Amino acid sequence: MGNDLNQTLGEELVVGLDAGGTRTRVVLAVADVVADADGRPLGEGAAGPGNALTVPVPQLTEHLTEAVADAVPERLRGSVVSVVGGFAGATAASPDDPGHVNARSALIAALRRLGVPAGPVGICSDIEAAFAAAPGTPADGLALVAGTGAVAMRITDRHGTATVDGDGWLLGDDGSGFWIGRAAVRAALRAADGRGPVTVLAETVGRALGLPDEAVPSGRWTRAAREAYRMHLLPAVMAEPPIRLARFAPLVAEAAAAKDAVAQALLDEAADRLTDTVRALEPSPGERIVATGGLLGPDGPLTPRLTARLHALGLTLDWVADGSRGAVALARLAHGGAR
Amino acid sequence: MGNDLNQTLGEELVVGLDAGGTRTRVVLAVADVVADADGRPLGEGAAGPGNALTVPVPQLTEHLTEAVADAVPERLRGSVVSVVGGFAGATAASPDDPGHVNARSALIAALRRLGVPAGPVGICSDIEAAFAAAPGTPADGLALVAGTGAVAMRITDRHGTATVDGDGWLLGDDGSGFWIGRAAVRAALRAADGRGPVTVLAETVGRALGLPDEAVPSGRWTRAAREAYRMHLLPAVMAEPPIRLARFAPLVAEAAAAKDAVAQALLDEAADRLTDTVRALEPSPGERIVATGGLLGPDGPLTPRLTARLHALGLTLDWVADGSRGAVALARLAHGGAR
Repeated sequence: MGNDLNQTLGEELVVGLDAGGTRTRVVLAVADVVADADGRPLGEGAAGPGNALTVPVPQLTEHLTEAVADAVPERLRGSVVSVVGGFAGATAASPDDPGHVNARSALIAALRRLGVPAGPVGICSDIEAAFAAAPGTPADGLALVAGTGAVAMRITDRHGTATVDGDGWLLGDDGSGFWIGRAAVRAALRAADGRGPVTVLAETVGRALGLPDEAVPSGRWTRAAREAYRMHLLPAVMAEPPIRLARFAPLVAEAAAAKDAVAQALLDEAADRLTDTVRALEPSPGERIVATGGLLGPDGPLTPRLTARLHALGLTLDWVADGSRGAVALARLAHGGAR
Repeated sequence: MGNDLNQTLGEELVVGLDAGGTRTRVVLAVADVVADADGRPLGEGAAGPGNALTVPVPQLTEHLTEAVADAVPERLRGSVVSVVGGFAGATAASPDDPGHVNARSALIAALRRLGVPAGPVGICSDIEAAFAAAPGTPADGLALVAGTGAVAMRITDRHGTATVDGDGWLLGDDGSGFWIGRAAVRAALRAADGRGPVTVLAETVGRALGLPDEAVPSGRWTRAAREAYRMHLLPAVMAEPPIRLARFAPLVAEAAAAKDAVAQALLDEAADRLTDTVRALEPSPGERIVATGGLLGPDGPLTPRLTARLHALGLTLDWVADGSRGAVALARLAHGGAR
């Protein structure tokens, strides 16, 4: 059975949202999972950031409205019977926590604006939604996010029951894209001032920061070149928000692929740190672990390294692109459609 | 001969400034070093921050004016023959660098306002001034600053010729007060989520951040207590500028003194990092190394640890409280008074 929009008129529909730190994604699907054999969504939408703690509620409401309007054609809105949103910033256990409260009020306002009669909406964390996106909509296991940030969560009966790291770029997110990007710049500076070994990262990071040619080393450093490099690099980095350091993570992957020893050691350490993060959840061999985030995707720079380390713990990694399909699955469960 | 203000009327005077990231200090002294046998300053003054790169020139001029006015009584201003200022943010080699240019124009404007006819003023970095503050006003050797930030410099003929670290809190300053303070909060979070060992820092950092009693652990952690701790601690830290993490460094010193193993390991690592920073300057055994900054003072938390490590490199640490006396010495040299 296909997912033709004309066929679905009058059929019960569900909406799943994945509201992350950089983007909000929305998927529309039929409520009856049996009728959704090919798994293609009926509609998809996207809009700006959806972190329920850092995006102010009026702006969050705008983004949700835009993404839901994109995904759900006007004439189908009356058929929506269940909505679940997974939100970054809504990781707390209690529905009274600010992230949950903000997410709920923004989502209810967005649905009301669009005339979607969703009834009670479900709010969960983006990590719980990502976990539910794995094949079979698992209820128990481990979730690991490794993108710009890094966090692991134990999921019990579809709810997060323990969190490890996710402490943000200033204090944690060890092994994340930010962590790798900052380490790349640190390695460059350490090579420049003699504390660390030579690495191609000094050149690639310098070029990515737009340093003038004369301040980017090629070959041997002179003392004067080292000083010039620092004097240009530091203000260039400080002129941007710290989180922008995450954009250097791909340079590390490239350098490691080209056998730069510093870059390879750095990715090894990132994988070690993520493994420590998972290990703190006290996994049992054979437990399911669902990963999401760019570092761990099919071509992710940490995928082979982390897969090997988790194998040693008896764990096999499932990767999902994002949590919107998980939110759809949870919306179906909330409606009773998949029981 | 004493340093009586009445006696010095008509005598030639010099002014030295130490313009640091948190405070500007000014010292007034007689130009003739032989006449200054007891070394007590004729006048002292202090005002707000003097970093030549981060404090805007009009504000910098205000702070310099206030501190110099404090130190130099009005009727003596006509007797000043030489002024040298050591500025944070003026570490670059070239007098055309922004830090140098800002410092010079602010200092000239301040002296003009106060009617101090100083002639050409000398600008150097606060680190060069601190180095010159050591007994005998040395010309060559190594300087190490370990306060909120951390940087080492090779000084040749009274000028910095190589810099190691000083890369700021985001990218470096390894082993600094900021570094130790952030590590304390990281250790607390890692204890809370099971990645790291138990440490008293979880409790002391939590209390210093004003966490509610029920969110501060005492004794064994439950999973719920761990989650509550993280949920209160993270927003409390993120509500402040990152550099404020430096205020937790004294908690680490206290915990280490009370035999907390995590805190002890942390101070050991800070001392190791500062040693690496010094080592990158390729010191020769017996070279003079002058330190400044709160971590390395007479009761500094890193003083015994770093002293031992530098001994192993054949280096002995001299500590100076700040660079204002060094700036005085440099002002005398500029005037020819000590030659």
